[in-house]
Amino acid sequence: MAKSPEEQHPVKAFGWAATDPSGHLSPFKFSRRETGDEDVRFKVLYCGICHSDLHSIKNEWGNSIYPMVPGHEIVGEVTEVGGKVTKVKIGDKVGVGCLVGACHSCDNCVNDLENYCPKWTLTYNSINTDGTITYGGYSDHMVANQRYIVRFPDNMPLDAGAPLLCAGITVYSPLKYYGLAKAGKHIGVVGLGGLGHVAVKFAKAFGAKVTAAMGTLDGIIDTVSAVHPLLPLLSLLKSNGKLIMVGAPEKPLELPIFPLLMGRKTVAGSIIGGMKETQEMVDFAAKHNITADIEVISMDYVNTAMERLAKADVRYRFVIDIGNTLAATKP
Amino acid sequence: MAKSPEEQHPVKAFGWAATDPSGHLSPFKFSRRETGDEDVRFKVLYCGICHSDLHSIKNEWGNSIYPMVPGHEIVGEVTEVGGKVTKVKIGDKVGVGCLVGACHSCDNCVNDLENYCPKWTLTYNSINTDGTITYGGYSDHMVANQRYIVRFPDNMPLDAGAPLLCAGITVYSPLKYYGLAKAGKHIGVVGLGGLGHVAVKFAKAFGAKVTAAMGTLDGIIDTVSAVHPLLPLLSLLKSNGKLIMVGAPEKPLELPIFPLLMGRKTVAGSIIGGMKETQEMVDFAAKHNITADIEVISMDYVNTAMERLAKADVRYRFVIDIGNTLAATKP
Repeated sequence: MAKSPEEQHPVKAFGWAATDPSGHLSPFKFSRRETGDEDVRFKVLYCGICHSDLHSIKNEWGNSIYPMVPGHEIVGEVTEVGGKVTKVKIGDKVGVGCLVGACHSCDNCVNDLENYCPKWTLTYNSINTDGTITYGGYSDHMVANQRYIVRFPDNMPLDAGAPLLCAGITVYSPLKYYGLAKAGKHIGVVGLGGLGHVAVKFAKAFGAKVTAAMGTLDGIIDTVSAVHPLLPLLSLLKSNGKLIMVGAPEKPLELPIFPLLMGRKTVAGSIIGGMKETQEMVDFAAKHNITADIEVISMDYVNTAMERLAKADVRYRFVIDIGNTLAATKP
Repeated sequence: MAKSPEEQHPVKAFGWAATDPSGHLSPFKFSRRETGDEDVRFKVLYCGICHSDLHSIKNEWGNSIYPMVPGHEIVGEVTEVGGKVTKVKIGDKVGVGCLVGACHSCDNCVNDLENYCPKWTLTYNSINTDGTITYGGYSDHMVANQRYIVRFPDNMPLDAGAPLLCAGITVYSPLKYYGLAKAGKHIGVVGLGGLGHVAVKFAKAFGAKVTAAMGTLDGIIDTVSAVHPLLPLLSLLKSNGKLIMVGAPEKPLELPIFPLLMGRKTVAGSIIGGMKETQEMVDFAAKHNITADIEVISMDYVNTAMERLAKADVRYRFVIDIGNTLAATKP
């Protein structure tokens, strides 16, 4: 018989969880595994609220497992490391993004693209290799294999840096892969939310122009996760221009083919980034003083934050001050 | 007042034309310009029947100008060259594809991509720089600027080589541009018609495997010009796979976004190719003995051929034997 989340693992943990699709979160006691040889355990200090947290707690993608502790923009301070950990030491500032596992043997994993591994393990709402459910960063501490630990440079603020772990890498990776991370490129960004506002900052740091004028763009990062027309966006691209989808509308979009042919244009997708590139992205962001624009909230404000997020009432990312406010919510 | 096609130019010509959207072609007298300094004049020997000829004579794309002499897979023998022509000489075997003009100064033209020039002139149903309408290859002779003349290597058959000028370059160009023209790549071809059957030959000549098995393809050349679902095609691609659209359905297709994100997949367009690449394609085809599979017909069979083409009743391209059969249809 399956053990309850409280009993599965030896280390007690406390966080906030959704227990049904109502969208409401509440205090929740559970457990985490011991620190394995390759594991890094850290005290969570901040956790960003990603739009996918909202989708997930409401089961809008139809794959939610309850109870669910959301959060995959997790930053904190290392408290314990396993015997084979070489990447970080106790006291280091680290982060965990969307991923905590992958097969490490497929073509994608071998090429540092854990984010395209068909057997990936997500930071929450996913099945771990030991058969237990993963729990995210709305919690007092976190444990993960060192491969999934991102080092935070000294000059990177922990609160405004947290959203880089999902929103940041999600836009950084396609800018690089699709050849748009170059001086002189002319980039459009559609949807100025959590992802979009960081895309603007990265594109500028790469030396690209970021504006929108008819038929002059080399590429567009489309962060919109609602159904929307693509034709106006295709017409903003010049020949060989690339429309990169990083948002995830539930329904198919209408793709007109003639405009795609006439300018040899591309519509392509991208989802977060591999661990090597995630570290590269954080280091690049630190060097160029790129962080998210955030509103720091206390743990007990999370349900109000979710309501505001649903109305797009945030400029541009909520980050939960886990370190200072979670403990006070313990029942 | 506009001159009739018979009077616009000094050189008499004879061909077959559509005079209304019925889809019926009939003998037609018109005229072509004198041989300019940069012009090449040639006797038409063969002309392929492209599916777009059928769309155009029936005005299915809504932009038809009548009378219309179709045909943009034109092969023949040079009879006259202008004083500045260096590319070919009298007696040479040459071809003209979809293009007879472009601006020659935009970014695309400068990079040998006349096919993406916003001011291109098509071989028929297009407005020439002198304001007259262009007429295609269902005719006794042709005249074009040498930039748009493709040299036919000695070992290239004129009849089975003709379809390369549109069908061939349309699939050759995206295989090259999208990085699929490499040994070891695994390519799918959707739609085994005029374009598709040539795509298979080129892909094989590049050393690629051409079969279809779930989730293993590096790229797919989609030649289907009817509305069709993209999701099954996206699921045939492996990570970073590319679905290249070269057909042109009139209505938008449904593009599911999640499958695009999950494997960093691309849906992209491509239309024919520039003149430099068209020559390269013909030379490559000659070297590798690639031609279209054709059914050679006489000029007076053209209306039956169009009816059969509408029913996809051809393996895989009709080519009109202009040289031997056009003259007999003169009224």
